[in-house]
Amino acid sequence: MTNTVPVLPSYVRDGWWTPADDAAAAGGAATETPEPRAVVVHDASTGEPVVRVSADGLDLAAVLDHARDVGQKSLGDLTIHERAVLLKRMALELTAHKDALHEVSARTGATRRDAAFDVDGGIGVLFTYSSKGRRELPNANLVLDGPPELLSKDGSFLGRHVYTRLPGVAVQVNAFNFPVWGPLEKFAPAFLAGVPTVVKPATPTAYLTEAWVRILVDAGLLPDGSLQLVSGSARDLLGQLRFGDVVAFTGSADTARRLRGAVAEGVRFTAEADSINASVLGPDGVPGSVEFDAYVRQLVTEMTVKAGQKCTAIRRAIVPEGLVDDVVAAVRQRLDEKVVLGDPRVEGVTVGPLASAEQREELHRQVEKLIGAGGRIVAGPEDFTAGPEVVRGDGSVGGAEGGAFAAPLLVRFDDADAAALHDVEAFGPVASVVGYRDVHHAAELVVRGGGSLVTSVATSDPGVAAALFARLCAANGRVLFLDRDDARTSTGHGSPVPHLVHGGPGRAGGGEELGGMRAVHHYMQRTAIQGSPRMLTELTGVWHTGAPVRSADGTSGSGPAGVVVHPFRKSLAELRIGDQVVGGPREVTLQDIEHFAEFTGDTFYAHMDEAAAAANPFFPGRVAHGYLLVSFAAGLFVDPAPGPVLANYGLEHLRFLTPVSPGDAITVTLTAKQIIPRETDDHGEVHWDARLTNQNDEVVATYDVLTLVAKR
Amino acid sequence: MTNTVPVLPSYVRDGWWTPADDAAAAGGAATETPEPRAVVVHDASTGEPVVRVSADGLDLAAVLDHARDVGQKSLGDLTIHERAVLLKRMALELTAHKDALHEVSARTGATRRDAAFDVDGGIGVLFTYSSKGRRELPNANLVLDGPPELLSKDGSFLGRHVYTRLPGVAVQVNAFNFPVWGPLEKFAPAFLAGVPTVVKPATPTAYLTEAWVRILVDAGLLPDGSLQLVSGSARDLLGQLRFGDVVAFTGSADTARRLRGAVAEGVRFTAEADSINASVLGPDGVPGSVEFDAYVRQLVTEMTVKAGQKCTAIRRAIVPEGLVDDVVAAVRQRLDEKVVLGDPRVEGVTVGPLASAEQREELHRQVEKLIGAGGRIVAGPEDFTAGPEVVRGDGSVGGAEGGAFAAPLLVRFDDADAAALHDVEAFGPVASVVGYRDVHHAAELVVRGGGSLVTSVATSDPGVAAALFARLCAANGRVLFLDRDDARTSTGHGSPVPHLVHGGPGRAGGGEELGGMRAVHHYMQRTAIQGSPRMLTELTGVWHTGAPVRSADGTSGSGPAGVVVHPFRKSLAELRIGDQVVGGPREVTLQDIEHFAEFTGDTFYAHMDEAAAAANPFFPGRVAHGYLLVSFAAGLFVDPAPGPVLANYGLEHLRFLTPVSPGDAITVTLTAKQIIPRETDDHGEVHWDARLTNQNDEVVATYDVLTLVAKR
Repeated sequence: MTNTVPVLPSYVRDGWWTPADDAAAAGGAATETPEPRAVVVHDASTGEPVVRVSADGLDLAAVLDHARDVGQKSLGDLTIHERAVLLKRMALELTAHKDALHEVSARTGATRRDAAFDVDGGIGVLFTYSSKGRRELPNANLVLDGPPELLSKDGSFLGRHVYTRLPGVAVQVNAFNFPVWGPLEKFAPAFLAGVPTVVKPATPTAYLTEAWVRILVDAGLLPDGSLQLVSGSARDLLGQLRFGDVVAFTGSADTARRLRGAVAEGVRFTAEADSINASVLGPDGVPGSVEFDAYVRQLVTEMTVKAGQKCTAIRRAIVPEGLVDDVVAAVRQRLDEKVVLGDPRVEGVTVGPLASAEQREELHRQVEKLIGAGGRIVAGPEDFTAGPEVVRGDGSVGGAEGGAFAAPLLVRFDDADAAALHDVEAFGPVASVVGYRDVHHAAELVVRGGGSLVTSVATSDPGVAAALFARLCAANGRVLFLDRDDARTSTGHGSPVPHLVHGGPGRAGGGEELGGMRAVHHYMQRTAIQGSPRMLTELTGVWHTGAPVRSADGTSGSGPAGVVVHPFRKSLAELRIGDQVVGGPREVTLQDIEHFAEFTGDTFYAHMDEAAAAANPFFPGRVAHGYLLVSFAAGLFVDPAPGPVLANYGLEHLRFLTPVSPGDAITVTLTAKQIIPRETDDHGEVHWDARLTNQNDEVVATYDVLTLVAKR
Repeated sequence: MTNTVPVLPSYVRDGWWTPADDAAAAGGAATETPEPRAVVVHDASTGEPVVRVSADGLDLAAVLDHARDVGQKSLGDLTIHERAVLLKRMALELTAHKDALHEVSARTGATRRDAAFDVDGGIGVLFTYSSKGRRELPNANLVLDGPPELLSKDGSFLGRHVYTRLPGVAVQVNAFNFPVWGPLEKFAPAFLAGVPTVVKPATPTAYLTEAWVRILVDAGLLPDGSLQLVSGSARDLLGQLRFGDVVAFTGSADTARRLRGAVAEGVRFTAEADSINASVLGPDGVPGSVEFDAYVRQLVTEMTVKAGQKCTAIRRAIVPEGLVDDVVAAVRQRLDEKVVLGDPRVEGVTVGPLASAEQREELHRQVEKLIGAGGRIVAGPEDFTAGPEVVRGDGSVGGAEGGAFAAPLLVRFDDADAAALHDVEAFGPVASVVGYRDVHHAAELVVRGGGSLVTSVATSDPGVAAALFARLCAANGRVLFLDRDDARTSTGHGSPVPHLVHGGPGRAGGGEELGGMRAVHHYMQRTAIQGSPRMLTELTGVWHTGAPVRSADGTSGSGPAGVVVHPFRKSLAELRIGDQVVGGPREVTLQDIEHFAEFTGDTFYAHMDEAAAAANPFFPGRVAHGYLLVSFAAGLFVDPAPGPVLANYGLEHLRFLTPVSPGDAITVTLTAKQIIPRETDDHGEVHWDARLTNQNDEVVATYDVLTLVAKR
């Protein structure tokens, strides 16, 4: 009978694949071959079979090699910005199919709100990495890390750090609870880095992962080998990885430990494991305060979104001893008001089932541990293993035998030292509540979790916040402070955002994901490079002081002379790093300084009063305004007529190094340092190295001038 | 007899400690107790016993707890800059005792040049971390990572990353070859981060580690519990570590694997393991070229410094097939000219013994493997196990039975695919040489090492460099390019510098050390924090846009009003973040623009030509110069009379966001954002948030103004 349930395909080596036996069986023909070891996956609300999942017979070695060969090649042919543009196109394509994804999502037990976290959240990650990638990374395949380091006095030997992509494959091992967001939040940074991905979804919700992969495949948005999907058991996949490959795992701490031991030395392994996250109510968060309400609202949200199946959910509510009763009462009331348990496809249902019957059984085992350790159920049914009354698919209310429903539970502990409170994870709509004596005690209880993904604190009192902050940071990947200012705008305890790191120390796995461009680095190798300015310029594509130049006045520079075109007259296509213009010298007179002071109103004594200026520890006497110097410098290097340079949009790293006295003469040297074409504009960014010197060749000021330059 | 050899003390819990039995035995009295399991360490050149080493009976749990309690407390009472100042004082103290350390160093087999790497190099790390720490980190205990991230449209909810120190202890497990530099390069960043250290030196050279620790102890420069020294076997030390602690290991890949398995989950583990480093001669590096000479000189240096006992030494010389004979001949000649093997205490000796007889035996075993795999000795004695003739301590020449001497060997491989060439590490004055066909082949051979600490490349050809660079980066922690420009100033293949990361992927252990402030982060936890501007300001000590201000004009800001002192009139002691001055509005007239253009010479068409400006995609018509705006802004916020603000030393992150047309009026809001007192000066740095708006409250420009402000 289960043979009539369709088999979920894998997407490997740029094509769809199903196990041979299953394919035949799905066609209805009887076969002599033994039944493949397919797993049947059921609808979370109704228990009806949805798909069979098996990767039996799949050549995993060929999958990995395809990524390492074809995937590396096709991604390497693109720049970071080109890949970022593709991420945006993927996001738009998935957005266009969002309703369909929500529909599939409902079969996993997800309400509309739950699906917004998973589906919309996953799409959001793609958008964020696309825009941040283009804003914060160069349009190249090399990412610089930090400024050059001078390693010889004469400047002929420099050091610098670069990130280059890993030469292997990124293998994801995902958890069942976020079949869209989970793979996408790992895929986006790997793709941006240029590393091909193999997605291994968790079997119970693999069909939702297959759904979005299929959308991207159908749209033709995936470069060859850049993404493969293994639907089914990955068997010894991790054992086949080697130096240059990387594993990103999400799941339980136990599985993380086991898988980490299965990979060879030299294979990177990142884990994001469930943790016993805490939420602390400050002593000032008394009933009636904004913080009390925000705390309770957030706690109930975390208990009920995704039916509590979030590795970031609040497991421990740590509240002032005197406020435990108030918190319990408020949570109970809000649960009563807000929770409508049922089939998420029915209008009005707010909380869906768990992902599978197995998950519900596992949840019951953990709740029993909590109760065995002294926990008392203070909100939700005491008889928690009985199937709750739910809204069924047809709108009727009653038991739902086939569905994996679990009612939200709040478990109260009187003994804050109960080990189970800090160790046991009931992965469902379940949180514990416990009282603390003082802020120090609260911090101690949080840290008892042994390292968490996130802790939240509701307080308006900076002293309380600071005391907790000092203790909590080292034990958490993320700490959220809730107060009257952000209670309405907070993105929430349980919601990782692509801008911030997700992951935590200790029990939480010790890994980091997301965090903007920080996550891209996880798919790259940081290398220190050393060499001459010329060589570092050639290798990085960024001009280094001391490297050859082509000077517009034909008089300076160690490169080929005779290039007389002002670099501002060159389009992005014509401009080369090292193109240079030298302007000056221009004498700075006392009259200039006085005039500038009068004109701008900047009559600071260092410019106006000889005696007072000389008494200043940094000045020999009256000196020119720094802003006068950069203004004069612009006058010396600007080419006035319309041309490819469109605008000066900013300036970086300006430092005034030697004061300029009346009668000194300044010279400016402007050199094209970095050229960043924009993929979707007719112009790009050019960073210019600006260097002001005086008549004694002392460096007066250094800075980078940022301009927009037309492509042609 | 060995009982007359002194026992090496440990330094634990802020006092010196020796095993009870040994202490008695060293005093000459007979005891009934069994002999402790002390290891006798011998002079590398003469074989005479130097010390006995044992930590039998040492309460290791108490050592760790002392660090976690007393060490954390005493270091936490200091700021990063205060700890940086202490590092400099330590460096100065060790410099004052450098001769004594060199003398002790000679007993380990180190020549004067070798000791310069170890002793002077270690002191150099302290100096560098002291100065970089004060220049690049705040004078606080919190390190910010990246800018704030806006998480709500109205700016009321922000995210940010911070680093805070780990709450535990940093345990070092060191290799024998750098008893000064090795522990110090790990200690400096941990100390700066505020994490106490337990040093476990390698037994054969532990007495040199004890020597510098004693100098620091005697000088009273170590805060309580900040540094402890375990001389002798550390037994189950690593097994006693827990979440919050960190291990920094240097040694063999095998030992790294074993120790990594011995630590609990949640304990950070960094490994820096020996690797089969390569040095590539480019096809252009023909005999007679600067690059050929530099290549050979560097290769011989790496073979002979520290008698080749460097984890960064060149093990594989990868040269063009047609140049193998030339390289061999040149290396042979240079070895003949430069190598004088002997007791390093004798004038004229250039290469000392290995650290111990055991090391020499191990070296012989590895050389035999190389020869068994097809390697032929082409420089150095074919009968390599025979004791070489050396300069003995009394100046005579002959065999030295007690010394661990080994003559330099160059081993030639005809088969570039021989596994031993890429796998076997002969940890002594031994390198292999092999030919490559083309640059692609050369890169392939380097990568066969499975991940290295460092690869060097001698070429003047950017094409060769780029082709190798693309392949080598992901397989190396450091890549050095040697050419005519840096041949004389290069710090060398085998020399980690404190500015750049040391460590490499794959076989090299996968860890990172040094790299300037990057290493400090390894002793800290990165945490994403989320909250309102007010709360993030309170927690980080850095003002965030939207947080309360105290305005000098008493008219704006959400903080307590009525503060009427201009913030430029406040000393560092009086100034608070959030202190603010608002200046303007000032109308910007067409006359202003034309006057500024004429005065500065900046007659860019966007300021001067209405039609041309309007044709520019970014401007509505003629607009004001950006530099005019920041100059006017300064005129609006500067307080002219002498006062605590001493100088504007620079500017950061200037962005022009909205063009200013003639007739627009600008207002500037300047807010104290960050205050960084300097430990050793009478002033500190203040960063001001500057924000220019127009008459419609649109943001015209944002930037940070950097000033120096007197402390009182």
